[in-house]
Amino acid sequence: MANNDVKLIGAWTSPYVMRAQIALNLKSIKYEFLAEKTGSKSELLLKSNPVHKKIPVLIHDDKPICESLVIVQYIDEVWSSGPSILPSDPYDRAIARFWAAYLDDKWFPAIKGIGMAKEEEARKAAIEQVRQGLAYLEEEFVKSSSKGKDFFGGDKIGYLDIAFGCFLGWLRVTEKMNNMKFLDEIKTPNLFKWAEKFCADDSVKDVMPDTDKLLEFAKILIAKIRAPQN
Amino acid sequence: MANNDVKLIGAWTSPYVMRAQIALNLKSIKYEFLAEKTGSKSELLLKSNPVHKKIPVLIHDDKPICESLVIVQYIDEVWSSGPSILPSDPYDRAIARFWAAYLDDKWFPAIKGIGMAKEEEARKAAIEQVRQGLAYLEEEFVKSSSKGKDFFGGDKIGYLDIAFGCFLGWLRVTEKMNNMKFLDEIKTPNLFKWAEKFCADDSVKDVMPDTDKLLEFAKILIAKIRAPQN
Repeated sequence: MANNDVKLIGAWTSPYVMRAQIALNLKSIKYEFLAEKTGSKSELLLKSNPVHKKIPVLIHDDKPICESLVIVQYIDEVWSSGPSILPSDPYDRAIARFWAAYLDDKWFPAIKGIGMAKEEEARKAAIEQVRQGLAYLEEEFVKSSSKGKDFFGGDKIGYLDIAFGCFLGWLRVTEKMNNMKFLDEIKTPNLFKWAEKFCADDSVKDVMPDTDKLLEFAKILIAKIRAPQN
Repeated sequence: MANNDVKLIGAWTSPYVMRAQIALNLKSIKYEFLAEKTGSKSELLLKSNPVHKKIPVLIHDDKPICESLVIVQYIDEVWSSGPSILPSDPYDRAIARFWAAYLDDKWFPAIKGIGMAKEEEARKAAIEQVRQGLAYLEEEFVKSSSKGKDFFGGDKIGYLDIAFGCFLGWLRVTEKMNNMKFLDEIKTPNLFKWAEKFCADDSVKDVMPDTDKLLEFAKILIAKIRAPQN
């Protein structure tokens, strides 16, 4: 489907931007990617998202839509002829929305917390939170894929797959930086398989960042944040 | 509509619980209210929301649904024969979801910040954030009610009305505790009128807490939080 009127303001390092990209790919929507430069904000971004001044912003027919989960739902509702992203059953939708909110409010902040922790105790607490979240999601996967499906959403990637899967790049970076494994075949066998299938999917493989490239970016970012302020 | 299978775990002081109540009222769904006691958590709550252990929890056909905005959307989708809560247009839905997320992530934390601030500087910054949020929402109301409607959602209370309106009790408590006005006829003339209409609505008036009663509760709560820990 050709849509010259679809633009996405983003950056390759942002998991939130990746959510919008995967949703657009699933619906076969062509879009123009407007890359923000690290450390500065374009006028278009400031104009399009004056409240948060953050990526991603989807611009459709000159109208801006902000916040990644809002964007994914918008894409699903506007291009409703494509494969459905949200589950069709209201209860399943509620469960998917619940876990997506949990990931954003609790789990990914814990991942960031590992990198940002100044004391060992805080770092350990953050690691434990990340592990707890993965245990929850492993359990949820078993529940929702009780018919042996590949994804949370069933046979195809859905809302919770997108919400969770976009963090895999940063999870792997965190594993490498801390010399540990979060997703493994013993503790999280289902998530381990799910992650492999998610990353190999046509809608994902070209937008999932290379772990080593993201690791380099992360090292620079953390060094900047930790540098003494003038 | 009689629904003996609908229960809501809540408390009269919680703005988030009120969201679920208003949504159920709008859909004319009868439900059993299971009041949690202040300072303790029931076994049913811990079993129904093991991740956050927080109210509200809607229990429908023995299945728990957690997180207030997830609950409101669930109610709208399950009882779709009643008046629609989410706007019908995908872009309007995205805008409503955007502001609802803003209220939860930024604005209400600022309201809490006023009460919790230990230093005058932090208190002033929180007050400024609350005012900024109201300026945004006043502007949004003018945009979305350009045809002279009473509510953000049009003629009837909708998603953003519920998300925002449930905080009016705590906004009034904050005004009283700080001897100031946030919503007034000069700076926020549209929100001022909107708030009056919202509180007078049939779906709201019986669940909006009395400001003085809520003020007493707030004073006890803040005193407890500020008390030196043993």
